[in-house]
Amino acid sequence: MKTKFPLVKKLFLKLSPPSLKDNTAEIDRLKKQVKIELGLESLALPFILIPDWVAALRAAEYRVTATVALTPPLPALIELEAGDTTRRNFGLAVDLGTTRMAYQLWDLAQGKLLAEISAENPQTRFGADILTRIHYADRPERLQELQACVISEINDVLLKLVREYNLSSQEVFALTLAGNTTMTHLFLGLNPASLCREPYIPILNTIEPLTAHDLNLRLHPRAVIYCFPNVGSYLGGDVLAGILHSRLHRQEALSLLVDVGTNAEVVFGNSEWLIGCAGAAGPALEGGVAQMGMVADDGAIEKVRIDPETKALSYSLIGQGPPKGICGSGLIDLTAELFMAGLLDIRGKFDLKTPTDRWIKLDGQPAYLLVPSEETATHLPIFLTQVDLDILLRSKAAMYTILTTLVQSVGYALNDIEKFFVAGAFGNHIDPRRAIILGLLPDLPLERYLPLGNTSLKGAAEVLLDYQALEEVKKIAEKITYLEMNVNQDFMNRFSAARFIPHTDPSLFPSVKRPEN
Amino acid sequence: MKTKFPLVKKLFLKLSPPSLKDNTAEIDRLKKQVKIELGLESLALPFILIPDWVAALRAAEYRVTATVALTPPLPALIELEAGDTTRRNFGLAVDLGTTRMAYQLWDLAQGKLLAEISAENPQTRFGADILTRIHYADRPERLQELQACVISEINDVLLKLVREYNLSSQEVFALTLAGNTTMTHLFLGLNPASLCREPYIPILNTIEPLTAHDLNLRLHPRAVIYCFPNVGSYLGGDVLAGILHSRLHRQEALSLLVDVGTNAEVVFGNSEWLIGCAGAAGPALEGGVAQMGMVADDGAIEKVRIDPETKALSYSLIGQGPPKGICGSGLIDLTAELFMAGLLDIRGKFDLKTPTDRWIKLDGQPAYLLVPSEETATHLPIFLTQVDLDILLRSKAAMYTILTTLVQSVGYALNDIEKFFVAGAFGNHIDPRRAIILGLLPDLPLERYLPLGNTSLKGAAEVLLDYQALEEVKKIAEKITYLEMNVNQDFMNRFSAARFIPHTDPSLFPSVKRPEN
Repeated sequence: MKTKFPLVKKLFLKLSPPSLKDNTAEIDRLKKQVKIELGLESLALPFILIPDWVAALRAAEYRVTATVALTPPLPALIELEAGDTTRRNFGLAVDLGTTRMAYQLWDLAQGKLLAEISAENPQTRFGADILTRIHYADRPERLQELQACVISEINDVLLKLVREYNLSSQEVFALTLAGNTTMTHLFLGLNPASLCREPYIPILNTIEPLTAHDLNLRLHPRAVIYCFPNVGSYLGGDVLAGILHSRLHRQEALSLLVDVGTNAEVVFGNSEWLIGCAGAAGPALEGGVAQMGMVADDGAIEKVRIDPETKALSYSLIGQGPPKGICGSGLIDLTAELFMAGLLDIRGKFDLKTPTDRWIKLDGQPAYLLVPSEETATHLPIFLTQVDLDILLRSKAAMYTILTTLVQSVGYALNDIEKFFVAGAFGNHIDPRRAIILGLLPDLPLERYLPLGNTSLKGAAEVLLDYQALEEVKKIAEKITYLEMNVNQDFMNRFSAARFIPHTDPSLFPSVKRPEN
Repeated sequence: MKTKFPLVKKLFLKLSPPSLKDNTAEIDRLKKQVKIELGLESLALPFILIPDWVAALRAAEYRVTATVALTPPLPALIELEAGDTTRRNFGLAVDLGTTRMAYQLWDLAQGKLLAEISAENPQTRFGADILTRIHYADRPERLQELQACVISEINDVLLKLVREYNLSSQEVFALTLAGNTTMTHLFLGLNPASLCREPYIPILNTIEPLTAHDLNLRLHPRAVIYCFPNVGSYLGGDVLAGILHSRLHRQEALSLLVDVGTNAEVVFGNSEWLIGCAGAAGPALEGGVAQMGMVADDGAIEKVRIDPETKALSYSLIGQGPPKGICGSGLIDLTAELFMAGLLDIRGKFDLKTPTDRWIKLDGQPAYLLVPSEETATHLPIFLTQVDLDILLRSKAAMYTILTTLVQSVGYALNDIEKFFVAGAFGNHIDPRRAIILGLLPDLPLERYLPLGNTSLKGAAEVLLDYQALEEVKKIAEKITYLEMNVNQDFMNRFSAARFIPHTDPSLFPSVKRPEN
C-alpha cells in the first residue's frame, strides 16, 4: 500500500448483504472488504465485539464506517459505526517535554491542524530536572503518581480541546507522543531508575502501539497510542521525531540536528548512516538557569543589541508588555553583544575597565543591569551576574564539545556539516550569528543553519497523518548508532578550551573579530 | 522458519546482562533473542507485564524461559519464568462434536500423547440435534448457557487430566478445537441462528487465535485458543481438521473424505482443488435413530453375519458382556446380510416368504429378532423393524446421492475416486463390503477405502504439535469450494433411485450379486 493514510483510517463500506450467491461469513465479509480497500494482509478485530458488530451490520443494512488502526505488524479494526462517519476522525500529537508539553489537535479526515497549545509538564512539581524525578519515581506508588499526573494532564487538555471544537473524545482515535527516554518511561509507568545508573540501559526502547484503555487515556478506548521509540537512555523519541521531521535520514548532504531541551541531543549523518549522542548542555540555553532566566514565552527578552561605540543597549521582547525576564536566546544575544562591545573578556569575565552606566553591584559582586526595576513587569531589575555568565559559558562549552566530539568520532570536521538543523524553541529564537560569536555554534556560513521549531511535536504529527512514517521511524531507530558521551580526559580538555569566547583557538572562528577598542 | 515447533514453544534463554558494550534496552534484548532463535519478524508481548518481567529478568540473572505463542500473523511472548522450565509445556486438543466431545492431552515439549478421553457433549441436555440447540440459543441468556456448559465441561475435563498427570493447569499453554460450524459458534458465544435460515451464512468463518482468558477457559490465562475455521454453515472446522489429517489436500490421486457425524460432510479433490458439501445423512448411520440403535460403545453389536443357506445369525460386540443394542456399523452389516440371505427384497422390505425362526410380530407389525430378551443386558429383546429399515435406507440413499452429486458436479464418476477416506467412529467400525452391498458406499475395490478414526481430534492435535499446520489449514479453507446441496428435482430423483438395495440400477454395483435362492 503506497497511498498516504492517517494512522487511523475511516472507511465507508457498502457491503453486499449475505446471499446464496456469496456465502462468505458476515465478519469475514467485513474484514475482506477492509483488507481489499486498504491493501492489508492481516486485520485483527476485538473478539468481544463480534456479536455487537454483527448486529450493527444487519441494522445498518451493511452500510457502515469501519475505523482501522494502521499499526504494523497487525492493523486492527477498532470501531464500526452505522452509515458514513468518515468525516469524524481526529488525532492528538503530543510533545512530552521535561518542562513543557505541547499538543496539536488534527482533523485526520481532512489532514487539517485544528489547534496547537502548550502547557507546563505537571511533573515539574515533583522536581524540575530529570534526575530528581527519576529518584522520586523509585517507589511504586510515586512512579504511579508521576505517570498519573501526566495522563490526567493529557486527559484535561483533550477534554478542553474537544469541547472547544465540538468533538466527542470518542472521535479521537489516535494519539502520538514523543518524549525523551525518561519522560517516555514515566508515561508508560516504567521505573526509569536504570537510566541514570551504569550501564544506563532503558527498560524498553521499542514500544508496540498501545490502546487508550491500556493507559487510562480518555480518547476512544481502542484508540491507538503510539510512542516514539527510544535510542538510548539519553537519546529519546523526541529526537527520532526530530529526525523524521527534519528528513536528516534522507539527506545526501552531511547534516546535523541539535535539539536543545533539558539536555542537548545531537544527531549527525545522512541517508547512509546516523550517529547520535546527548549531553548536559541544555538548561542555561533554555533559559532555565540564569537568575533572571525564563522560558521563551510572553515577556521574555529574546533579542539584545549593544552599540560597540556608545555601549547603548536595546532589546526586543516575545509578545507585548513590560519585560519579565530573559530567555535562552536573549541570554546568548546579550553575552555575544557584551563580548563584542568589550564588556566581557575572552574568558567571559566582566571587563569593568570598559565604562558603561549599566555596571551595578549586587551583594558586593559586579553585575550588568539590563532593565531597571521601574521598567519591568515584576518591578524587580533584570540583570546578569558573573555566576549566570559562568553557567552559560559552561553550557556553551559543553555544547561545542559535544558537537566536536560527535563529528570527529566519525572522522569529520565541524566545517563538513552542510545542513545544521536547530530544533526547539531555542532554534526558532536563537540568532545563529550571536551563537557563533559566543562559540556555542560552529563558525559555519549562516545559510547552513536551519531553524525547525518544535520538531518533536511536528514529527509526532507526521505519524498521525501518515501511518507509513511509523515504519520510517522504526528504520531510523535501527539505523542510528548511539555514542556514549563518556566524560574522559580528552573531553575535559576540549571542554576547557571551549569555555573561552569564542574559543581558545580563534582559528576555529575566523569570522569572529572584535572591533578594536 | 522451517523447523517443526509446537503451537506454543518454550525457549530457555541465557541473555547477556545489560552492559556499556551493548546498550540494547532490557525488554528489547529479550524480544530480540526470541526473534533470532525462532526466526520471527515481529513479536507482541503484554504491555501490562513489562514491569514484572523486567524484575523477573533481573532476579533470574537473565536466565529465563520464554513461552512464545507461534500464532500468525503476530507471534506473542505469553510467559516468562526464571530458569529452565522448557519441559513443562502442555496442550489440549478437543473435538467438539454435537453428541460427543473427545480430548487429547499432549506433552508439547516431548511431542508425546499423555491421555485420550471422550465424554458426552453436555449441550445434549438442551436438545440432541443441532436444530433444537440453534433454536434454544436464540435468546442471549440461553446462548450464554449453551456456551458456558461446554466451557465448563472442558474446564472439568482439563482439571481431571492435570490432576491425574500431576500438572498445573497454568502449564497448559494451548488448546486447539475442531467442531462443526454450529458447535464452533456456540463455543464462541455467537448466535448460530443465521446458519439454519436462508441464505445460511455463518457469523464468522475465520477465527483469529484467542486467549484462555477471552473464553474463561482455565488454562494459563494467556494460553492460545485456536478454533479451526468454518467453510460454510454445514461444513465446519471438524472437516478442515479431517482434511489436514488425511492429507487430502496434498494427494495427487483423486480422493474423497467423508465424515459421518450428525451430518455427513464430504470433501472431494486433490492437491489442485477441493470441493465440499454436507447433507443430512448421518443419524441412522451413527446408530442414533433405529429403535435399538446406540453409539459405537461397549455392548454394541458391531458385526453381523447370516448364513445364506441356514439363515443362522452370528454377531460380535464392542467390548465384553451381554449386548445392549446395535450401532451404525452393526445395522449396516445386519441389513446387508438380511438382503444377501433373501430376507429383504431390493426395495428394503422384509421378505416374509423366506423362512427363519427370527420373524416376530410387534404391535401387529413384522420385525426381525436379533437377540432374545434373555440374552441382552437390558433384558429386552434386540430387534429390527421395518420403520428402522426405512430410516436406514433413507440415510444410505442420502449418502449415496450426496456422493454422486458432489463427484458429478465436477465432471467425475464415483469410480474415479482413488482414495476414499472414511473418518469417525463410523469409519473404524464399518465393513466397507457390507456398506457396498447396501448401496451406501460406491462399488469401489475395497483397498481404496481407508478408515482414519477421529480425524477431527487428530487434526486438532496436529496443529498443537506443529504451528505451521495453522497456515496449512488457512490455505485449505481458502481453497475449498462449498457446494450448496440444494434439494432440487434432480437430487430427489437420484435419491429415490438410491433407496433400493443396492440401487435401482444394478450396473452401478457390478460386484453385488445375491445367491439364487
